[in-house]
Amino acid sequence: MSADQAAQPGGQWDEAAIEALLAPAVRALAQPTSLSPLPYDLNAGVPDRASLPARELAEAAVAALAEDPAGALTYGGQQGFEPLRAWIAERQSAETGLALTPAHVSLTAGSAHGIDTVAATFLSPGDVAIVGAPSYPGAIRTFRARGARVVDVPQDEDGLRPEPLRKALEQQRAVGAPAKLIYLVPNYDNPSGATLPLERREAIVRVAAEHRALVVEDDAYTGIDLDGPPPPPLFQVAEGQGVIRLGTFSKTIATGLRVGWTLAAPAITERLVFMRFDNGASPFLHRMLLHYLRSGAYEPHVKVLQDIYRARRDASAAALVEHAEPYITFRKPAGGFFHWLRLREGLDAARVAATAAEEGVAVTPGTMYYADGGGEGFVRLVYSALPPEDLREAITRFGRALERVAREGEG
Amino acid sequence: MSADQAAQPGGQWDEAAIEALLAPAVRALAQPTSLSPLPYDLNAGVPDRASLPARELAEAAVAALAEDPAGALTYGGQQGFEPLRAWIAERQSAETGLALTPAHVSLTAGSAHGIDTVAATFLSPGDVAIVGAPSYPGAIRTFRARGARVVDVPQDEDGLRPEPLRKALEQQRAVGAPAKLIYLVPNYDNPSGATLPLERREAIVRVAAEHRALVVEDDAYTGIDLDGPPPPPLFQVAEGQGVIRLGTFSKTIATGLRVGWTLAAPAITERLVFMRFDNGASPFLHRMLLHYLRSGAYEPHVKVLQDIYRARRDASAAALVEHAEPYITFRKPAGGFFHWLRLREGLDAARVAATAAEEGVAVTPGTMYYADGGGEGFVRLVYSALPPEDLREAITRFGRALERVAREGEG
Repeated sequence: MSADQAAQPGGQWDEAAIEALLAPAVRALAQPTSLSPLPYDLNAGVPDRASLPARELAEAAVAALAEDPAGALTYGGQQGFEPLRAWIAERQSAETGLALTPAHVSLTAGSAHGIDTVAATFLSPGDVAIVGAPSYPGAIRTFRARGARVVDVPQDEDGLRPEPLRKALEQQRAVGAPAKLIYLVPNYDNPSGATLPLERREAIVRVAAEHRALVVEDDAYTGIDLDGPPPPPLFQVAEGQGVIRLGTFSKTIATGLRVGWTLAAPAITERLVFMRFDNGASPFLHRMLLHYLRSGAYEPHVKVLQDIYRARRDASAAALVEHAEPYITFRKPAGGFFHWLRLREGLDAARVAATAAEEGVAVTPGTMYYADGGGEGFVRLVYSALPPEDLREAITRFGRALERVAREGEG
Repeated sequence: MSADQAAQPGGQWDEAAIEALLAPAVRALAQPTSLSPLPYDLNAGVPDRASLPARELAEAAVAALAEDPAGALTYGGQQGFEPLRAWIAERQSAETGLALTPAHVSLTAGSAHGIDTVAATFLSPGDVAIVGAPSYPGAIRTFRARGARVVDVPQDEDGLRPEPLRKALEQQRAVGAPAKLIYLVPNYDNPSGATLPLERREAIVRVAAEHRALVVEDDAYTGIDLDGPPPPPLFQVAEGQGVIRLGTFSKTIATGLRVGWTLAAPAITERLVFMRFDNGASPFLHRMLLHYLRSGAYEPHVKVLQDIYRARRDASAAALVEHAEPYITFRKPAGGFFHWLRLREGLDAARVAATAAEEGVAVTPGTMYYADGGGEGFVRLVYSALPPEDLREAITRFGRALERVAREGEG
């Protein structure tokens, strides 16, 4: 047989041949979420575009390349640029009161990549990871890609509930498959917007330690604090033991930077670094980011963002009360990007989303956020990406969609 | 129990508790290679530092951020910036004569990350991946991290040998564990420096297709062509079917960029993109790189690099003949960064490397590159990182180390 024959359409390398080679996890995973082509996109959790600090970052890029071109443009190692890790450790020390060093920090390509690194280090096929119901679908996909079994625990308006968590941990222990980790977004959760109160943080840290399950605390939205600072991180509550905190500069600077971090005991951090296979991130990006962070522009920029997102949250909340309240209930989130709307009994999320799309508005049905079914009675609505006037128009249309679905339900 | 107790030293979160949670693969993996603190580092396969195009990249960074700040600084998707994929597809079409489009290309954080993406998509625990003996240890680690079994097939001075490959494939089929993929570096192999002749490429593509094993062609060193262009890629020989070609800008521009690519049939590329969990790379980096590539500076830069590395290869080869030849034999590579030295009978690579370190020279024992034992009779020596005068001094010292080991052997 010649190479020509091997390449013939319908020969060895048809679709079925490729399909047969795929890892089983590929077939088990849901599609990732994607951007919407509708006029009003309240679906993608992306930051405001107009406030991106492009000029300051360009200056930082030039400075980073001028200061140490060879350092910026040569492999920087899997753990990431040490002075940037030191900057993060210093901030985290000040925030938590713990003595943290660059050895506690590794740099990732955003917190999603942090989740992947945690999964690579701790999850093998059949291992159990606990998530909230609802939960960030990217985490569910990432754990399942490692062959892990994802067990969900109910959330309420205050986030993950400690008692059902305890029961889930006990049940997993009873069946001989103890959970390896518990994943949660304690501040301004995606999708629920909930912020976990201090007592729940303490209870979760306690029960996790009793069961020797790691807590993976995804802090992707921290910094977008709209009503003052949130309660102390679980990492602090646990005095830095048994918790991996994931952070990112995506929401406070730019999602296009792709720089985030992990914070954990050095013994854990070492293993996370050991399980990286990409020869590390770009030291140029790390140096550029550090120039920007040290320039004095970062803190005022975060304040500007808080003002922008507070105005959007409040405008969208008011519009929801005005145009959608007969059909939904919700609690205004204390930060972050999301409204999580409970639909009135009898309204179905998929129909609401489809009808909203007909009105030109993209929202996400709650079913997207459940590992094991559920969410038909919820819709997630992003307020971060559009200015108040667009939010008002979008939510007026969304209210029209709700009214249509409600009428059809009665008809 | 309080959170304080949970955090006590020797409590739940001691080293043993963390160890118990690790995925088994963590324990199975070798340490990655690292930089050497010795005066003459012929160990790390890093490019020349002085020729890095820092000024041109700074201009490209500024241009990318000025042209479309929001595009550069907002999530760019898992597949990567489309115009950069189009640039790569156009080049690859011209090189291979195949009609390639952006749908054939995904962007990665270098070719190591490309290997990881391939592993995520195709390898599950127990699956078989074939590599050369010797082979790039990063690939072996990455496959094993997915729980795959790595089977090695002997190389000679012309690279991977098709007949042992056929036998290994047949044996795997016979035991009911057919190999899923064959990994190789066809041009200027790391570590062997070998370049696979066309007939071998044809034979490997043929036997891989017969066994429906994917060929993963790692082209990390292509472009560093020191004696003219290499034979056509296996991707071209296979007419784009059943082969995944991995490329990178690390060696021709900068290892600190962390931008590489995969080239494969769209049905494969889709799956590779589906199995990414990092929300994609930085679109800022992709746009900056494309500005640089379009500036007209790239092609002359590659020629400059070829001249630099040719001078280093030739100077180091001459020094090896002068100072080391009684103890080694080698074939001058046609490109890339590496001399692969066969030690005279009776000399052991570990002792040679240890003695060279005493002389201030870091080289890598061949044993680092074997998945399943072997390599005691080889040493890898990097000629890319140091200028000719340093290479001459380093190799003079290396020759002294060889002489010492040979004398001790006789003593």
